[in-house]
Amino acid sequence: MSRMAIRYTPEDCAHLLSAVRTQQPLIQCLTNAVVTNFTANVLLALGAAPAMVDIPGEAAEFAPVASGVLVNLGTPTQSQRAAMVEAAEAARAAGTPWVLDPVAVGALSVRTAAARTLADLGPAIIRGNASEIMALAGAGTGGRGVDSTDTPAAAEAAARSLATATGAAVAVSGARDLVFGADGTGVGIANGHVLLTRVTGGGCALGAVMAAFLAVTPDAVLAAAAATGTYTVAAERAARLASGPGSFAVALLDELAAVAPGDVAAALRLQALAPAALQQQGAL
Amino acid sequence: MSRMAIRYTPEDCAHLLSAVRTQQPLIQCLTNAVVTNFTANVLLALGAAPAMVDIPGEAAEFAPVASGVLVNLGTPTQSQRAAMVEAAEAARAAGTPWVLDPVAVGALSVRTAAARTLADLGPAIIRGNASEIMALAGAGTGGRGVDSTDTPAAAEAAARSLATATGAAVAVSGARDLVFGADGTGVGIANGHVLLTRVTGGGCALGAVMAAFLAVTPDAVLAAAAATGTYTVAAERAARLASGPGSFAVALLDELAAVAPGDVAAALRLQALAPAALQQQGAL
Amino acid sequence: MSRMAIRYTPEDCAHLLSAVRTQQPLIQCLTNAVVTNFTANVLLALGAAPAMVDIPGEAAEFAPVASGVLVNLGTPTQSQRAAMVEAAEAARAAGTPWVLDPVAVGALSVRTAAARTLADLGPAIIRGNASEIMALAGAGTGGRGVDSTDTPAAAEAAARSLATATGAAVAVSGARDLVFGADGTGVGIANGHVLLTRVTGGGCALGAVMAAFLAVTPDAVLAAAAATGTYTVAAERAARLASGPGSFAVALLDELAAVAPGDVAAALRLQALAPAALQQQGAL
Repeated sequence: MSRMAIRYTPEDCAHLLSAVRTQQPLIQCLTNAVVTNFTANVLLALGAAPAMVDIPGEAAEFAPVASGVLVNLGTPTQSQRAAMVEAAEAARAAGTPWVLDPVAVGALSVRTAAARTLADLGPAIIRGNASEIMALAGAGTGGRGVDSTDTPAAAEAAARSLATATGAAVAVSGARDLVFGADGTGVGIANGHVLLTRVTGGGCALGAVMAAFLAVTPDAVLAAAAATGTYTVAAERAARLASGPGSFAVALLDELAAVAPGDVAAALRLQALAPAALQQQGAL
Repeated sequence: MSRMAIRYTPEDCAHLLSAVRTQQPLIQCLTNAVVTNFTANVLLALGAAPAMVDIPGEAAEFAPVASGVLVNLGTPTQSQRAAMVEAAEAARAAGTPWVLDPVAVGALSVRTAAARTLADLGPAIIRGNASEIMALAGAGTGGRGVDSTDTPAAAEAAARSLATATGAAVAVSGARDLVFGADGTGVGIANGHVLLTRVTGGGCALGAVMAAFLAVTPDAVLAAAAATGTYTVAAERAARLASGPGSFAVALLDELAAVAPGDVAAALRLQALAPAALQQQGAL
Repeated sequence: MSRMAIRYTPEDCAHLLSAVRTQQPLIQCLTNAVVTNFTANVLLALGAAPAMVDIPGEAAEFAPVASGVLVNLGTPTQSQRAAMVEAAEAARAAGTPWVLDPVAVGALSVRTAAARTLADLGPAIIRGNASEIMALAGAGTGGRGVDSTDTPAAAEAAARSLATATGAAVAVSGARDLVFGADGTGVGIANGHVLLTRVTGGGCALGAVMAAFLAVTPDAVLAAAAATGTYTVAAERAARLASGPGSFAVALLDELAAVAPGDVAAALRLQALAPAALQQQGAL
């Protein structure tokens, strides 16, 4: 267990935040109409540079220039779906890491087909709530709209299986966030605040933050964990300043800009998760 | 007059707010690009669950699952117009109540045709400003963009006629909001604040709130009145905290989350409106 | 130099702000999905009336009714590109002044073609960052996504050439904003705050504000300068109230509503720029 326990430290995550701020990675977002403004503002607050390039003919042109790409299926118009495949293929060919967020996959037919196609195009991270990850892994039928009807713990087996099948790191958001690697690595992040569920795009914007962290490390599990850690620590700080969901969203942007790497290192609660094999053997 | 005077009380409206918070209805929104983020945040703040499912092939799939649907014609792309008809037909077939907001109908040809088609598909509530309601009823040519050039009082005859023709409750927003039922019922809500007109989507988001209230009562006039009452009481509270339109929009979200049913009951100023017949006879 | 120095005064700009507040011009915006909400709220806060009419069949219908039009190429879907040409042609035919914002032109092929077509349709103002203006003038290859990789000073020759070629006033945003007229006029505006670069749409919304000022003066250089001056003075005031980019965006809306013409006149730092010919001759 000692190896797992020290695989990633809060200091590793804090170091990546410094790198994001220094390198200001250019993040291409193909995301839904509901959260595109908030997502761009989250990236700007963090210190990254958003570029919402999501039309056919430009999506593939931009992916090789970008440092990271987010593909989010929240409101997938026909034009956007074509652009998403373009961008994913161009990102893969150019070596630009990209994040897939299969919003509401399972319950809705068009995006479910799109998500399966995209999952085969080499995302570095797949991010969703428990119901979405289960549905994409073929282990469930999706949640209630964008809301999960399952807990992250219930999605663990599906997430590990999806990571193995796709080679992607799989991040499951919830009261405790979980990240699994294709090699069996598992990390829990026990930060965050319930107000994140009362702001639209609270999860969607995290996908963009993950793309920004992918731009500064080749380790997708670490990128997902560090992004989640930075975002949820900022959320905890914002919640202390907020009077409700409106002022929380504003304070979250302020705190994403203000939070120092040392703040993240001090507040982050990372947990090593035992490999599935050990769990199944009852060794833990 | 006594029957009318007590038909709906502030306590009825407050009771419905409690029901929305308890049941957390899932509200499908097909709405315009300008206000989709604010609308989702308003629903989340209120305690409902937004799902902005507005593409062909998914819109009809989701409407039977949703507890209420909003169709708002603010920026009606071709794809969205097709999805709106899909969603309205599926909602009608499944018994999911839905709200039609015919933004800027009258002056603009594409949406005027779409609004007429949709008005025949059984909306439970039609919501608009005075010029929009008059234009949809065939009694006017629309306003100035999204702004009304008529007062709610001037739209009363058109609203009553539209309610009778469609069977929908017809809600007319303005300094005093009015709601009319197909059976001749009329309710005035004398709450609100002028800052609501300085935030884009101030009216559009109210349409989504009406859909949330429709999910907890079969009485469309009461749903429209209770939604309007909750929203405008929250607006009054937000205005007391605001320094201008930016901080007002933030405070409105905070107050939609914070306002208690008892606060609504205490602050709501409902007014019974005399039936048109009595008005015409000069009896009042 | 004395003629140049007094051509436009801060009082001229303040006077136009009063006119915008009095006339409440109706501004049609065909803009990108990321910033459409913020842009509408900026116009409302300022005292103008936004109308985001951007679909084919309605775009041309509305442009003659509008007092000013904004065409912004940030996320140009196929439908929106068709509507933009429609709106620009209808605006030109009707005499409605319009603003072109060629976001990220140069690096991306679809919008570059669209921007060149639109630049020939008689915009009154072309607004962009230095890299965008240089790319549209044929003097550069564009920036890094939406970010400029050139300074306004470096873009001066390209901006002057673009103004001469199109007849439009050309506004270049940056730490110091510059505006050039087709007749050789040049104005610098040395106001603003770096937080404007940390909010998505900080520049895009300024394009809409320019359209609002075009509605109250036939002098496009003055309209661009007065819009920039009002916006950047409000930004300076907002920055004093802000804790970060989230609260800055909120405060900017509050300050756009609160700033008085006298405040603008007092704070605005206008600078006359020497004609290119004099600069080339080393006379200055």
